[in-house]
Amino acid sequence: MLESIEISHFNGRRKGDSIMSGGIIALLTDFGNRDGYAGIMKGMLLSCDPELKVVDLTHEIEPFAVISAAYILYSAWAFFPEGTVFCAVVDPGVGSSRGIVLASVKERTVIAPDNGVISLLCRMYPGLEVFSLKSNHPALPGGTSATFHGRDIFAPAAALLASGKGEELKGEAVNPVISESFRIHNDRGRRILHSRIIHIDRFGNSISAIHSGDLKGGHSFVRLKIGSRVVTEMVQTYQGAEAAIPVCLFGSSNFLEIAVRQSSAAQLLGISIGDEISLYYR
Amino acid sequence: MLESIEISHFNGRRKGDSIMSGGIIALLTDFGNRDGYAGIMKGMLLSCDPELKVVDLTHEIEPFAVISAAYILYSAWAFFPEGTVFCAVVDPGVGSSRGIVLASVKERTVIAPDNGVISLLCRMYPGLEVFSLKSNHPALPGGTSATFHGRDIFAPAAALLASGKGEELKGEAVNPVISESFRIHNDRGRRILHSRIIHIDRFGNSISAIHSGDLKGGHSFVRLKIGSRVVTEMVQTYQGAEAAIPVCLFGSSNFLEIAVRQSSAAQLLGISIGDEISLYYR
Amino acid sequence: MLESIEISHFNGRRKGDSIMSGGIIALLTDFGNRDGYAGIMKGMLLSCDPELKVVDLTHEIEPFAVISAAYILYSAWAFFPEGTVFCAVVDPGVGSSRGIVLASVKERTVIAPDNGVISLLCRMYPGLEVFSLKSNHPALPGGTSATFHGRDIFAPAAALLASGKGEELKGEAVNPVISESFRIHNDRGRRILHSRIIHIDRFGNSISAIHSGDLKGGHSFVRLKIGSRVVTEMVQTYQGAEAAIPVCLFGSSNFLEIAVRQSSAAQLLGISIGDEISLYYR
Repeated sequence: MLESIEISHFNGRRKGDSIMSGGIIALLTDFGNRDGYAGIMKGMLLSCDPELKVVDLTHEIEPFAVISAAYILYSAWAFFPEGTVFCAVVDPGVGSSRGIVLASVKERTVIAPDNGVISLLCRMYPGLEVFSLKSNHPALPGGTSATFHGRDIFAPAAALLASGKGEELKGEAVNPVISESFRIHNDRGRRILHSRIIHIDRFGNSISAIHSGDLKGGHSFVRLKIGSRVVTEMVQTYQGAEAAIPVCLFGSSNFLEIAVRQSSAAQLLGISIGDEISLYYR
Repeated sequence: MLESIEISHFNGRRKGDSIMSGGIIALLTDFGNRDGYAGIMKGMLLSCDPELKVVDLTHEIEPFAVISAAYILYSAWAFFPEGTVFCAVVDPGVGSSRGIVLASVKERTVIAPDNGVISLLCRMYPGLEVFSLKSNHPALPGGTSATFHGRDIFAPAAALLASGKGEELKGEAVNPVISESFRIHNDRGRRILHSRIIHIDRFGNSISAIHSGDLKGGHSFVRLKIGSRVVTEMVQTYQGAEAAIPVCLFGSSNFLEIAVRQSSAAQLLGISIGDEISLYYR
Repeated sequence: MLESIEISHFNGRRKGDSIMSGGIIALLTDFGNRDGYAGIMKGMLLSCDPELKVVDLTHEIEPFAVISAAYILYSAWAFFPEGTVFCAVVDPGVGSSRGIVLASVKERTVIAPDNGVISLLCRMYPGLEVFSLKSNHPALPGGTSATFHGRDIFAPAAALLASGKGEELKGEAVNPVISESFRIHNDRGRRILHSRIIHIDRFGNSISAIHSGDLKGGHSFVRLKIGSRVVTEMVQTYQGAEAAIPVCLFGSSNFLEIAVRQSSAAQLLGISIGDEISLYYR
């Protein structure tokens, strides 16, 4: 196994070389901030290219919570500069035969395990191009750690992508794994959108997969059911809600969420990720 | 609502332009590190100016804990380089009519909601200059998200400030909202300073609003009362305390705190933020 | 006490000066991410040298957990670029008479309290050179805070080291404090390696001090005992394990760990840091 970096592919690249990218890499993992795993990925990235700008998007995804990761990846996408390489390592299948994909749209790229992490990007950006990672690229060591692909595969591959060598890493075009959690079922007869809770944020706001675009065409909100609870208020801002009354609003990424002003909707209503919701419209 | 960045005001600014700042922005929020909100602010800042150095001061302020934020903002102020722009987004009133302020002293600037976050700066730096944010500046989009001002208003405004365009954003001079929590009441007759706990740190050290300067003029510590508990020891360092004995000391920002060596004073004494304390002096 | 930075030693150093390092500093502390302590260290580092690249390795070491810190420091060492200065502040003895050490090997350096934080580096790199910090260096203020050496001593010293002035800070060669937790006792007669759990990661993987090198010479794993529990499976990857069955594997830094696939071994087996283990081999 790898005990130190071997970055022959990057050899000779030193500060001041024209090959230096100054590229931006945004990290999205479930490694947490307490074990050094995320920090070690940053060390590896800087070993590959000391000029990289490495930005922590988040390392506090719930362990193995691919759905939350997919939501956060989409919500960040357009707000990072063009050229940004997202490195999304939420990877319950590390060490198995799951593939690794490269996906690009709007001048940004992500490298991620092929496990659904790019599901919401796929839904929201029909032009997303997805390729498998060429695993036999010389920069990607064969005798790598079986347990820490973030350090040994994703980091050097992301560094290559950020330095403009993405083409070398592209394998075949592939149809990526898509999670069912982001699918909307529209019952037009009864005028109900069926969806799920895909993320619960720090404040307890409970975010569904229903995008403001799903209610287009003159339709408007009537009420939302989640389990046995009904939410009847739709507001524009958290401050528009009365205290202790659950409300619906379209949040900062334009997905429908359930919120309680200065309190936790998830706690008050007992909401969990994956819970089904029904949005009644007219 | 905003679905991607529109940074026309920054257009044409690319690496190498003389307009590039390389400025430092220090972020102080209650967004947490798990939802990507803080990361998205960083993406937005780099979209405005890829040369910015964005430093996480903290994103783990207790949700809506304006008092803790005010303490940490002050405690960091003088230790960041001159020219630093602090971006302090602890904002329970997002979406309401609360204002936004720009405050400057000692060659550093902060942009924050006008809700008391700059209270301790005001108390400790009488020369602090405070202005309202000109909300109609072309770099600050009108059709912004009602729920994520950190991304849509604070980040682009902070990027402008860091690139030396602060003057354009300054509105009227204003008297900012000041929190009562930082006021000291000196009962000179009975020789008691009345104050409150303003922050409890990770180690359980419980920090009050009493500054070492409040005991000047030859006065010295006799004892401290908090609820029904009395602390009679005053030490210079945590190591100066005996095990399991609560002590007082002036901490790293020169505010009086209650501590227990290698243990949690807050837990042992049941201290909460906002608790009243009485410092008896002679 | 220090209320603001006094960085006379760094005076005159401004962007563009040839003395600028662009050096990398990796921070490893138990300060947490919620109080601003880690952020203030970053501010201090940038005040000393605005060109530094400051990387958060982790600030979420359990308070005072020197053993975990020693493990993470070693596991990160070789993956950061040559020239990196690690600044490791896990320091239960702050304010006492404990020393501060500088240790170097493989073109990387660490500054740390002399309390065992460099124990695993010492064991794994016999060539590690260790010196005391010259505490009377003019860049290190005498009238410093008694409680926040991370800000007042470690940060300016690390900035000096990263700018190539390490020689000035070196005092005498010293024998550092070594923790017993990393010692392996090999009972060759009964073919048992005795060791301890030195770190438990976010996923509950419980890492021991037994390195893959300790089993060299044709020996192989038979079983592991921890308390009354026995682990009989040895696998290559987490995915190689059956659900709910504790297994052993050599992790990403080549130390033996106990894991359960997509679950927490520490929780399932009730493992704590410091627990003794016995590895039976043949």
